[in-house]
Amino acid sequence: MNKFLSIATLAALAVASPLTAQETEQPEFPSPNAIVEAAPASDWVKIAPSDLLVMDLAPDAEGNARRVVIQLMPEPFSQGWIRNIRKLAAAHWWDGTSINRVQDNYVVQWGDAGYDNPESGKTEQKALPEGLETVPESAYTQQITSRDPADTIIWDSGSYGVDNYSDMSLFEKGWPLASQIGVDTRLRAHWPVHCYGAVGVGRNYSPDTGSGAELYTVIGHAPRHLDRNIAVVGRIIEGMEYLSSLPRGKGQLGFYEDASKRVPISSIRLACELPTADQPRFEYLDTEAETFAKYADARANRRDPFFIVPAGGADICNIPVPVRRVSAE
Amino acid sequence: MNKFLSIATLAALAVASPLTAQETEQPEFPSPNAIVEAAPASDWVKIAPSDLLVMDLAPDAEGNARRVVIQLMPEPFSQGWIRNIRKLAAAHWWDGTSINRVQDNYVVQWGDAGYDNPESGKTEQKALPEGLETVPESAYTQQITSRDPADTIIWDSGSYGVDNYSDMSLFEKGWPLASQIGVDTRLRAHWPVHCYGAVGVGRNYSPDTGSGAELYTVIGHAPRHLDRNIAVVGRIIEGMEYLSSLPRGKGQLGFYEDASKRVPISSIRLACELPTADQPRFEYLDTEAETFAKYADARANRRDPFFIVPAGGADICNIPVPVRRVSAE
Repeated sequence: MNKFLSIATLAALAVASPLTAQETEQPEFPSPNAIVEAAPASDWVKIAPSDLLVMDLAPDAEGNARRVVIQLMPEPFSQGWIRNIRKLAAAHWWDGTSINRVQDNYVVQWGDAGYDNPESGKTEQKALPEGLETVPESAYTQQITSRDPADTIIWDSGSYGVDNYSDMSLFEKGWPLASQIGVDTRLRAHWPVHCYGAVGVGRNYSPDTGSGAELYTVIGHAPRHLDRNIAVVGRIIEGMEYLSSLPRGKGQLGFYEDASKRVPISSIRLACELPTADQPRFEYLDTEAETFAKYADARANRRDPFFIVPAGGADICNIPVPVRRVSAE
Repeated sequence: MNKFLSIATLAALAVASPLTAQETEQPEFPSPNAIVEAAPASDWVKIAPSDLLVMDLAPDAEGNARRVVIQLMPEPFSQGWIRNIRKLAAAHWWDGTSINRVQDNYVVQWGDAGYDNPESGKTEQKALPEGLETVPESAYTQQITSRDPADTIIWDSGSYGVDNYSDMSLFEKGWPLASQIGVDTRLRAHWPVHCYGAVGVGRNYSPDTGSGAELYTVIGHAPRHLDRNIAVVGRIIEGMEYLSSLPRGKGQLGFYEDASKRVPISSIRLACELPTADQPRFEYLDTEAETFAKYADARANRRDPFFIVPAGGADICNIPVPVRRVSAE
């Protein structure tokens, strides 16, 4: 189905040509979504329940449940913070905390809003669980050795490798990354990038790197200047709309000035700690598979019927990695 | 004020060091916002009330007014559609229409949702005013002659001129543009780009280009693949949060399936057609001014205290042109 059709046309199309008929026509230039839908089962990779964080917000004003699912980053990225996040979830630390900040075209942030103690006159924070790691700033990036000193381009898939924020962008294990050659050209730094829906770790001034207790997600144009300055630990794969559509905070940086506007978090759990029947299951499209290359090319060069001029390129955040919900085994 | 501080730190800073004191310190590397705040009055350009479109939505559930202000693009871009939009506003055509589509990380779209006529069994649309132009697809871009055949780079301001969607991005008259050299290298095409908050014209299949009656704005990562495929006619300069925070539609493409979810539009007027006292006044930062170059550089290379690694670049949609509200003369 094409974009930006008027409602009248949408209705007319729905009447005149059922989608199934259109899809079986196999057009010469299928849409990115059609390419993904045609992927063989072997192109999809299961996401382990232990890599999913399930955040249940308090029901909305109409009583509807609001569940947000976060996929945690795989090794070797951001693992110190992710170990902390697993501990925080296991300790049920976030239960009763809240979403406290919604800044338009930027981030939604959640964690402990603190408690104004009238006796001390101070804002007091909830105690963190024992044994959280202090992760060094060096962990914002991963140093890798080029396979060959002369072979500095380890991935070149046309114009969507061009990046304003690094010397190359790439996909690995289902994640968008940026990469920069070092002064020692045998070394490259790789790092995860702040695309829409990326989840990062709030922190105070350097050298603090945050524990993982204070988290945010991106709800606007990719704020790539945060890359290498804050840890990216995951991405929202379901329920993003419950965060992105929240009223914007009227305070500084989008914090809710009125505490009653904060959205209570009922619980955050690792999916593997939920009852089996309640564990959501997801798969991502293998970014090494041929289907993904076709999908990325189609995102960069839209030739499906609505389009008249293919862009000829795409930035990495405009090629979201397809993720789908699947039923339990 | 820095980003991603915990609430506790934010509170502590507010107590320990009032913002005014911090700002008068004039740090070595001021933030982009501080650079803009320090701009001389001569760096700001007035926006004519005749270039502002004022959209009043029905009040929200709590009875709060919701006003959205759109700045229309200057010549030579998209002027056919903009003439239509001026006629539609003058005819009060949008009054009583609605916001009908909210698709996460994509667009909010408004216009005539149509009326299901039980007699004809068809969805009927509101009649358009007489005399609207049919704008050709060639108007998606503007051809310009390079000043010199050999001089194909007319603007080079470092890495934020690099673009995934054209051979160069640039700012002109306060607007982000993309530019591509033609087969005849004496010619360049320029076009306005789909950044967050850009306003475009919904259309049906090519060669339809839309009249301007159906409009949308971008509420997510810049969908730059729409450039040169749909007309960009303006941008939201105030009240964006009333659109971006709307509940996402559950129907195909984010259309509201339940008509009661549509947000009524009370009126859309050119600001110059409002009573003088009700006309909003705005200025944008002159994109030719030295302040703007400093601001863009600071966006691309954040060195203010929160940041530890400057990005070294920025894409054009991550350098939003500063716009400010001013009081009437």
